[in-house]
Amino acid sequence: MKLTDQQKKEILEQQSQQNMTKRTVSVELEKILYEAISVLDHGFIRVVDYMGEDSSIVQAARVSYGKGTKKVSTDSGLIKYLMRHRHTTPFEMCEIKYHVKLPIFVARQWIRHRTANVNEYSARYSILDKEFYLPAKEHLAAQSKNNRQGRGNLINGKQADAILDMLKQDAERTYKNYEEMLNERFDGTTIDESKDGLARELARMNLTLNTYTQWYWKTDLLNLLNFLNLRTDNHAQYEIRTYADAMLKTVKKWVPIAYEAFVDYRVGGLELSSKSKLVIEKMIKGQACNFENSNLSKREWNELMESFGFTEKII
Amino acid sequence: MKLTDQQKKEILEQQSQQNMTKRTVSVELEKILYEAISVLDHGFIRVVDYMGEDSSIVQAARVSYGKGTKKVSTDSGLIKYLMRHRHTTPFEMCEIKYHVKLPIFVARQWIRHRTANVNEYSARYSILDKEFYLPAKEHLAAQSKNNRQGRGNLINGKQADAILDMLKQDAERTYKNYEEMLNERFDGTTIDESKDGLARELARMNLTLNTYTQWYWKTDLLNLLNFLNLRTDNHAQYEIRTYADAMLKTVKKWVPIAYEAFVDYRVGGLELSSKSKLVIEKMIKGQACNFENSNLSKREWNELMESFGFTEKII
Amino acid sequence: MKLTDQQKKEILEQQSQQNMTKRTVSVELEKILYEAISVLDHGFIRVVDYMGEDSSIVQAARVSYGKGTKKVSTDSGLIKYLMRHRHTTPFEMCEIKYHVKLPIFVARQWIRHRTANVNEYSARYSILDKEFYLPAKEHLAAQSKNNRQGRGNLINGKQADAILDMLKQDAERTYKNYEEMLNERFDGTTIDESKDGLARELARMNLTLNTYTQWYWKTDLLNLLNFLNLRTDNHAQYEIRTYADAMLKTVKKWVPIAYEAFVDYRVGGLELSSKSKLVIEKMIKGQACNFENSNLSKREWNELMESFGFTEKII
Amino acid sequence: MKLTDQQKKEILEQQSQQNMTKRTVSVELEKILYEAISVLDHGFIRVVDYMGEDSSIVQAARVSYGKGTKKVSTDSGLIKYLMRHRHTTPFEMCEIKYHVKLPIFVARQWIRHRTANVNEYSARYSILDKEFYLPAKEHLAAQSKNNRQGRGNLINGKQADAILDMLKQDAERTYKNYEEMLNERFDGTTIDESKDGLARELARMNLTLNTYTQWYWKTDLLNLLNFLNLRTDNHAQYEIRTYADAMLKTVKKWVPIAYEAFVDYRVGGLELSSKSKLVIEKMIKGQACNFENSNLSKREWNELMESFGFTEKII
Repeated sequence: MKLTDQQKKEILEQQSQQNMTKRTVSVELEKILYEAISVLDHGFIRVVDYMGEDSSIVQAARVSYGKGTKKVSTDSGLIKYLMRHRHTTPFEMCEIKYHVKLPIFVARQWIRHRTANVNEYSARYSILDKEFYLPAKEHLAAQSKNNRQGRGNLINGKQADAILDMLKQDAERTYKNYEEMLNERFDGTTIDESKDGLARELARMNLTLNTYTQWYWKTDLLNLLNFLNLRTDNHAQYEIRTYADAMLKTVKKWVPIAYEAFVDYRVGGLELSSKSKLVIEKMIKGQACNFENSNLSKREWNELMESFGFTEKII
Repeated sequence: MKLTDQQKKEILEQQSQQNMTKRTVSVELEKILYEAISVLDHGFIRVVDYMGEDSSIVQAARVSYGKGTKKVSTDSGLIKYLMRHRHTTPFEMCEIKYHVKLPIFVARQWIRHRTANVNEYSARYSILDKEFYLPAKEHLAAQSKNNRQGRGNLINGKQADAILDMLKQDAERTYKNYEEMLNERFDGTTIDESKDGLARELARMNLTLNTYTQWYWKTDLLNLLNFLNLRTDNHAQYEIRTYADAMLKTVKKWVPIAYEAFVDYRVGGLELSSKSKLVIEKMIKGQACNFENSNLSKREWNELMESFGFTEKII
Repeated sequence: MKLTDQQKKEILEQQSQQNMTKRTVSVELEKILYEAISVLDHGFIRVVDYMGEDSSIVQAARVSYGKGTKKVSTDSGLIKYLMRHRHTTPFEMCEIKYHVKLPIFVARQWIRHRTANVNEYSARYSILDKEFYLPAKEHLAAQSKNNRQGRGNLINGKQADAILDMLKQDAERTYKNYEEMLNERFDGTTIDESKDGLARELARMNLTLNTYTQWYWKTDLLNLLNFLNLRTDNHAQYEIRTYADAMLKTVKKWVPIAYEAFVDYRVGGLELSSKSKLVIEKMIKGQACNFENSNLSKREWNELMESFGFTEKII
Repeated sequence: MKLTDQQKKEILEQQSQQNMTKRTVSVELEKILYEAISVLDHGFIRVVDYMGEDSSIVQAARVSYGKGTKKVSTDSGLIKYLMRHRHTTPFEMCEIKYHVKLPIFVARQWIRHRTANVNEYSARYSILDKEFYLPAKEHLAAQSKNNRQGRGNLINGKQADAILDMLKQDAERTYKNYEEMLNERFDGTTIDESKDGLARELARMNLTLNTYTQWYWKTDLLNLLNFLNLRTDNHAQYEIRTYADAMLKTVKKWVPIAYEAFVDYRVGGLELSSKSKLVIEKMIKGQACNFENSNLSKREWNELMESFGFTEKII
């Protein structure tokens, strides 16, 4: 990630603010507020605003349950109870806003989470930066043989070089032609004073999907956790997962108690179907139990065995 | 509005906070943060948290439009432009949270605005306060003759007294029986130690719709303005309108520029249909124009004349 | 449930329609379309429209995955896969609309599910029916001692009679006074021709929360299943649960394959936290495992044991 | 638009269905159900399912207002009243589902409308079609000089040829390299049997933003009209506007009364700010009125004059 001097200056100005407020404050999050955290080759995330912290969750729950919550003595106990029993509304009382720089193909996955507010840099108004994502060699994987949406073995040697070369050259050539059509370079200088440039809203269509864009993305804690649960999962594409991983660390600073409950009950948790539950019951009781008498499909059986780290996989 | 000593103490504690933050701050809103603003006879609203202010709208817009916004030199000019052209997403970047005490029938109208986060006091867990709304005499209106959902003439004298008496006695009696069924009084004392009380989730059904409830209600600025536009309108029921009016004043303190644009373009504005626009065009050109050649229905014609304060009403 | 003659006539007219369509059809659901299914003492649900069925889920998934879905040979296999892995968007492609008659306190719980479209009978415009919910004796339970939101032992004998009497008399008296204030009876007749009635939007506040209202409620299959998962749960209040149970039966007729997957993976399923998963792993391996070395709270331990039907409860 | 034989066959099969239903039917919409309506060079829209029609809006409104709607005698009168007064919820009772083929840069604008259900063809699972949008010559416009997001004069002659050439060659080259990386051609044939192909989720990043994608897009009538109001506007980018225009024609077939009200009150309507309203009032009264005494900004004055077709523009 290379920040421009202008960006560095803006970040320093934002960080130098010292305002008084009667609002609650997340001390640990304040320490990294506005800081650009590097993701992929040119991307970043920055927390640029927030509202509430762990105590806001507790406060909302106590308003809801009234005297009914008095028995749960600690904030931590209450937040865990809420997370465990999916009492979700108190988690909506915290809000956070990120500034994110990300490749367009990642933005396309991300935007499918509809319960957020977004302001994206508009390529109808302005020229996109001359930056595109090129995977590191250790992420150049072949299509998985047995998982339609996953990655398989690494691609090495000449084939890897050739792929990276194609990605780089195609991105550079399409960007150069984008400038050519606009009759304007990425730095705002005009190419040929005697000509008009093509409308930006049209020229942008020549860019490749690994071109970087940026946006402000704002959501409440509940929807953020839903997003992170899906996108930190190892079925998520590596590129969006690195963003989710970086964001999860900011959640740990922001709402440490909710974070801990989330990791215990969601990230590290497991959902059993009613049939799988019967299998587990038999296993605990030491009863004979195998794929044949499990009522599960092969796929379900394998997923269940893997989730417990058992080796009895059916092929 | 009577606050309990406990509530007064909590408010003072909240107001006495002096935290340092790098976030932007709305200086005027900070001055009334947590303060209970009286609405109706026992209700209130309180701003209990917020995120962003006018500059956050500007910042989001500038991220979107990039260099494209440089020509609009002032924040005020930009915010007005966004409001006028319904570029709505930058207004979503501000968030506010209210604590509201309100009669249940008002809560039922309010909750129809779905784009908000809500934590309501739960009558499954806890006993509702012994407080119910009784209209002031000057709001006791008859059903309107020509408007199916409005109020007509005032009701006076003995009929008014009789109505207020019924409302008061019915609310008191149903609340007393609520306590009886619960076998517990509003202050938590048990009525008859030898008996079990009815489950709270059942007993509450005996309460009348003017009983007060309370909630935390959190929304972004865009959806708040949509809510206020509908609920400060003179077609809105008086009781919810008083809440909207009180909230509108807090918006003025929070985001004064957005407030001004909202009042100019929305609250005081007017929507013309394509047919009404033709009528207005004729009028401006001094062409003969009346109901008969207007292509409007009687109702449309009357609404149009009224909106401009003209007297040519068709009955 | 007593339907008026007018309602019966309308239902018969709706059911007698025989239209040709190129849309997909759910044969089993068509058989009960428009039929009023009785719930509680005066309530009902009716399916009044729908769009799509099991094949619509499959079709949407195949558009998404393209050739990638060819390997999953059966519709049933694909729907189960989607449900298991929370690939939720294909389930949003089916839509259903219910007409529901329900007590106001149930409506207040229901409306908290925000992702639905609602048109409720308006008590600002019209007079509410003279119908209120009175629990059957076998549902008159005491407040639970150990669960803040639940029901405990049944209430019997004189206390039960007294409670039902209060509920009945209070509902009748407040309704009678509602008519009095309106100067109009439930059947539309005027009480005193010489007087104006109080505005409906005001008079309604005198009604108790067990008064029946009605609405059209429309949602997609995904959000319906989320609603049913929460509201058929035994932690849900009995009164809303009976509505959810009745609706679940209509889902079985509408989308039988999705229904089966839902029951297996959601209703009968179990979520394990990461700590609970470690306990289960130990148990399967026959390792010593008890509350003390489980890292779980008492409450978590008890919930885990109960979910598997084991008796080692800690008090 | 060229449909494959497989697509043509599917459409014919869908159209040949003749099912009986008790649901309401939109006779005109049924006639074009499933039909692919050509948009841009390779795109299309198809209505693939729907629920409800004009009478469903009326029915929902009558449930809401009860006897209160009896005075509005016709369905048409009622629907116009609802549209005029922004009583929006009855319009949510109709639902429609489109199958759309569209360039990725159009999809990126479209998806910003969050209140819809979407299933998009996944380039993680499957190979995208070898089809990309190339503008017709009459749409090759220069960047507007006075509107940051608009198009200005046409670009002609050699410059136009050069631009189209760049767009075509870049799209073809990046697609060819996409196949190369995948080691698989668009038709599914393998290029080099001795090699693994790059994972699809990675290779796709090499494609340009004018590559076509496709999705199922489902929404209710209210949100569809909001979408169409914004996207049929002449400020919308031409490419998405052509989709909106084609969809608007399907709305006319589906719900002709709501369509007519929409065109009168929204599409052809005008919003006046409170300051603009004062200007119009003066004009009607024949009072002296010009930019200087209008209290409007230059931009507002010009927009107001233009909206009425007056020529007194301030530069």
